[in-house]
Formats: sequence, C-alpha cells, structure tokens
Amino acid sequence: MITKKNGYLRPLDLKHGRIDMNHGAGGRVGAQLVDELFARAFNNPYLRQGNDGALLSVPAGQRLVMATDAHVISPLFFPGGDIGSLAVHGTVNDVAMLGATPLYLSASFILEEGFPLAQLKRIVESMAAASRACGVPVVTGDTKVVEKGKGDGVFISTTGLGVVPEGRDIGGANAQPGDAVLLSGSIGEHGVAVLSQRESLQFETAILSDSAALHTLVAAMLAAAPEGAVHVLRDPTRGGLATTLNEIAQQSGVGMLLQEAAIPVLPQVAAACELLGLDPLYIANEGKLVAIVAPEAASAVLAAMRTHPLGLRAAQIGQVSEDANRFVQMTTAFGGRRVVDWLSGEPLPRIC
Amino acid sequence: MITKKNGYLRPLDLKHGRIDMNHGAGGRVGAQLVDELFARAFNNPYLRQGNDGALLSVPAGQRLVMATDAHVISPLFFPGGDIGSLAVHGTVNDVAMLGATPLYLSASFILEEGFPLAQLKRIVESMAAASRACGVPVVTGDTKVVEKGKGDGVFISTTGLGVVPEGRDIGGANAQPGDAVLLSGSIGEHGVAVLSQRESLQFETAILSDSAALHTLVAAMLAAAPEGAVHVLRDPTRGGLATTLNEIAQQSGVGMLLQEAAIPVLPQVAAACELLGLDPLYIANEGKLVAIVAPEAASAVLAAMRTHPLGLRAAQIGQVSEDANRFVQMTTAFGGRRVVDWLSGEPLPRIC
Repeated sequence: MITKKNGYLRPLDLKHGRIDMNHGAGGRVGAQLVDELFARAFNNPYLRQGNDGALLSVPAGQRLVMATDAHVISPLFFPGGDIGSLAVHGTVNDVAMLGATPLYLSASFILEEGFPLAQLKRIVESMAAASRACGVPVVTGDTKVVEKGKGDGVFISTTGLGVVPEGRDIGGANAQPGDAVLLSGSIGEHGVAVLSQRESLQFETAILSDSAALHTLVAAMLAAAPEGAVHVLRDPTRGGLATTLNEIAQQSGVGMLLQEAAIPVLPQVAAACELLGLDPLYIANEGKLVAIVAPEAASAVLAAMRTHPLGLRAAQIGQVSEDANRFVQMTTAFGGRRVVDWLSGEPLPRIC
Repeated sequence: MITKKNGYLRPLDLKHGRIDMNHGAGGRVGAQLVDELFARAFNNPYLRQGNDGALLSVPAGQRLVMATDAHVISPLFFPGGDIGSLAVHGTVNDVAMLGATPLYLSASFILEEGFPLAQLKRIVESMAAASRACGVPVVTGDTKVVEKGKGDGVFISTTGLGVVPEGRDIGGANAQPGDAVLLSGSIGEHGVAVLSQRESLQFETAILSDSAALHTLVAAMLAAAPEGAVHVLRDPTRGGLATTLNEIAQQSGVGMLLQEAAIPVLPQVAAACELLGLDPLYIANEGKLVAIVAPEAASAVLAAMRTHPLGLRAAQIGQVSEDANRFVQMTTAFGGRRVVDWLSGEPLPRIC
C-alpha cells in the first residue's frame, strides 16, 4: 500500500465524492484514496511500511493458520453491522475455529464506479473499528475499481493469519462418537436481519445480526478444558447450523443426534422465520460457534462459555453417534425423530 | 474449504453448465463446486484438511511477509495468460519484492451468476498450473456468487505468505543517492497485450503479456549480492515504470535520473503504443522488476539477472540522486531532460 503524501491534489471529497475509474488506475488519485481513507482509518505501523506487502513477526514455536473469505453481502448496511465489520468478524472467526490466535488481516476491495465515498468511508471506518476491537490489525491491502454495472458497490475479501501452538489439533475431522455437541447461543439472527433489511420488513422487535468476533470466547473455552478435549470448532455461517453439522459429520465419518428443544432461537427470529417460510436451522449466523467436545470436558467448557458475553445462552444441543450413513438426526419438540439434511432448495443469496 | 464427497448429486457439467446462485449458498451444490473443481485442481494436503482455514508450518527464525491483490482484469483471457495465472504471479511477486520466499497462497473467488463452468475450469486449472510451477500452493479459499449484472464473470483476490530472514530489509523507503536503478527487462507488454485483446487489435507481431513469477529471479539476485546491497525491489504493475519509480522516490525522499535509451521496449510494443497514443513508461508490467542497488553491487546483481530466463534483457536504467523535490527525471534519446511524472490523465482500467 502506498501511504505517501501528495501535495498536488485537492483532498478527497468524502462527503459528496464518488469512486471513479481513476481510483483504481494506479496513479496519484488511487494513492490519494489509500492515503486519505484506508491508511488513515486502519492506521498501524505495518501499513506505514508503505510496500506492496507487510513484514510481520510471529511468536516462535507455533504453526500458522491462514483463512480467507470473500464478502458480497447485500445490502451493505444491515441491522447490527455492515460489510466492513462483517469482513473482520468472519475471517477472525475462521482463524479462531482452528484454535488459533488471530494476529493479522489483509483486505482487498473491489469498488464499483460511482459508489459514494461517504458510504465507503462508513464501511472502512466500521472495518477499522472492528479490527481494533478484535486486536487484529489490517496490515496490507489492495483496491481495484470496476465500471458501473460490473460490480455491486463494494466487495471485500479478507485473509486472516493466526498462530496455533504445536500439538493442538482442532478441525472438522475430529468428532468422535460420544462427544458432546455444544452451541454458543441462539441461531438465525444474522440471516433474518439481512433478509428483513433486504425485503424492507418491519418486525415488532428489532432483529439484529449477531455478527461478532469469537476469538476471545474460543480462548476462554480452550483455557477451561484439558488440551485435546475440544475436538471441533466451527461457525455455522452460510447454510446455517444444519449444514455445518452435516459437514462435520461427513468429515469425521460420524452421525449426530440433536435435541430440537435444546437449540436456542429468539422468539422474534422464530416468528420471522415462520412468516418468511424459513427454517432457522439453515439460516446463517456470524457470531455463533459449534464446539464438539470430549464428554468428560463438556460441562467445564459449557460453564466457560456461559461466563463469556458471547456465550451466555450456550447449550449442549446433542451428541455425536456412530453412524455409517453420517446422518444428522434430531429429536423434535413433539418427540419424533427426523433427519436434518444439508441446505437444499431455495438459496439465500449474498448473506455474507 | 469443504472437500467432502457428495454421493447424491450428478457430477458438475463442466462442459455446458453455468454458475447459479446455489453455488454460493453454502449447501451441497456449493460443496460440490469446491470438491469437483477447486479441490481437484489445487489438490494439496492443506486443502485436504477440509476446514475453513489451513494449518501451515513455517521455518523457524524468520519473519513473515503478507501481501494481497484483487484481480479484476478484463478480458479474463489475454495473450500470454488469464486472470488465474495472473492472480498467482501478481501475489507471488508482491511477496518476493520484500526479499521473501513465497510459501502459500489463499484465493477468494467472486463469480457472476451465469458464468460458464467451462471457462471457470480453464481459469482454475491455469491458476493451479501457475501455482505448481511457482511451488506455491493455494492452501485455502472461498467462493461467493453474485447475481447476473452484479459482477463481471470472475474476480479473484489472492493473498500470499512468505518468509524473510531476520535482518533483511528490502523496501521502498531504502533507496539512497548514488544507488543504481536496474530493470529486469523490456516494459509495456502486459498492458499492451490486454488492451489489444480488449480492443480486438491485430498487430503484425503478436504481443504477449509478460506475466511471470519473479521469485526465483529475486533469489538469484540476492545470492549474487552481499546482504544489504539490494535496497529496493518493486514490480512496476499498475501505473507502469514511471509511477513505480515515483512511488519509491517519494518513499525514500530521493530523486532519480534515468536514461531513456537504456530502457528496453520491444519494437512491436513501441509501435502499438504509438498507434494507441500511450507511453510505455505508464503501461503495466506483470513479469518485470525494478531493483535499486548499492553502486558497488550493481554489476554483480546485473550479471546474475542476465543469467536468469526472466532477466536476459536486464539493464541499468539510471541512478538515484539527492533531490528535495523527489523528482524522477530522464535524459531523453534526443539529449534533453524531462520530468517523468506519476500516471495522470486517462486511466487504463482493469489491467490487472
């Protein structure tokens, strides 16, 4: 990133200006956008190195984790967040789900010609605030511009780097029969918040996205359990809780049996889902995690979750079973049992 | 990335199929796209970990370098490359320009609904081939889909990770008066190749993009010079050689004096530029580098460059000077002297 000062241009008009093709052409005007907007908001010593990459230090004796996400959410602003804060939370969470401590983020922006600079400023400042709140700086970036009608305002791809101690092995292939399936809180808020904004629906009780960074919750959970007791961590984003659990069952070669009554859903989310014909099990979350934990550690992990602000409603929602079919099944509130399949049918596009 | 097998879907129709919104919705169909296209092409043990991030190892006692690029080039296929190979080369080069050894790449894809799977396959396979040729695997990724008319076929953001030994300090702020300015080869090919494809121009001699990974050239240069003698490395991409040298002059607080006659330009590129009213100094390159080197090491570095296939036409094109104005000046072929300014005026959009 270029962070030099240009004495020759008028300052960016961050109130009334718009992105034009010049902002992506690699000249003085592009440098000005980086300088007066991005570098100022993300302000940190890595960006101030002023090169096309950042030089970073990492603690010795640890392994690295790298995760990346493209963010194309529509609308860009939604109750409880925006594409900027979401991009930080989403990638910090992907790193944290491997039991890693997130350290650094990169950000690449694809901007549509004509996009208002005032909105871009709001997004970048929200992203910077989320990054500071997480303690994970945006250390390098890139900006490109596409013609009007060839993009949709702003797309943001983020990549996160973290470190994980030698010997820690948390991943989707590690679930074992008998393990407890824990969920950190109520499901469906993010997807319903975005859809209601998109469809201009009003509900009596506002539904906010749960978008949040989960790395401190993960740290609390890992501190409460013996090393090796937390087998899987995953955030149920696109496809919702149902798809995430199916992914894990598939990877680990196990089944799962859930109790519907144990899965927390806010009443306003349940009502909105009924209205919209949606099942909260398939709705994206952006601030929740699933943990699959050795049975003897489950109560300690659950207790640690409940003392963290992002895990107050944590619950054990089921158990891992032996199942050659790798089915996720659920005991319903009515006492029946059904298979909880992968997401299929109508997709919910551009939810993240 | 999800790499599981799905027994329930027909295989992807990679000949006649198209991207639809389901491919981005996080269900079985999205998993199938990853499984049957991305994971198969990029095939490596990191992707096979099957989590939302990759667990990596890095050599001890080194620092990390992280660089990111958004790629929005249009057209997606051009003489000498495509968006897939370009995305690999561009990011490998950004890492290498800090004197680092590139180790890993992440890739995030933003696909437009309706995009032909056959073209996506070509791009992904080209990207995988470039990645293998560089020895830098794509270890994690993400795929999103946007509605028809909200994107432009394929955008790819790549992030690269590399390592640099303790004590090595190569960066844009390190140019010193008296240093030699070296260029690894002829300029302007990438931009002219893309523009000619875009405008359907035919030239007598085909002009191919110079898109290439420069990390082995950098390694050869660094091996030929005493540690500390290579002060700056940078690839003159967007904005061309002129803008890159101005960036470095600005960052280092120096001036430069170039010799126009020493800057290699292929005759067909010179002819095309004249026809198109362009100056090769401002045209993007994707396989060239500028090195700013202590004068006593210049001939050794230059000799090393000329023994590498990507540096056969390497030349010293000028010298760093003391200049409070930080001007880049050039002695023209006619013996005059002019200031070489930053890119301004008409941008060349979506060249990378």
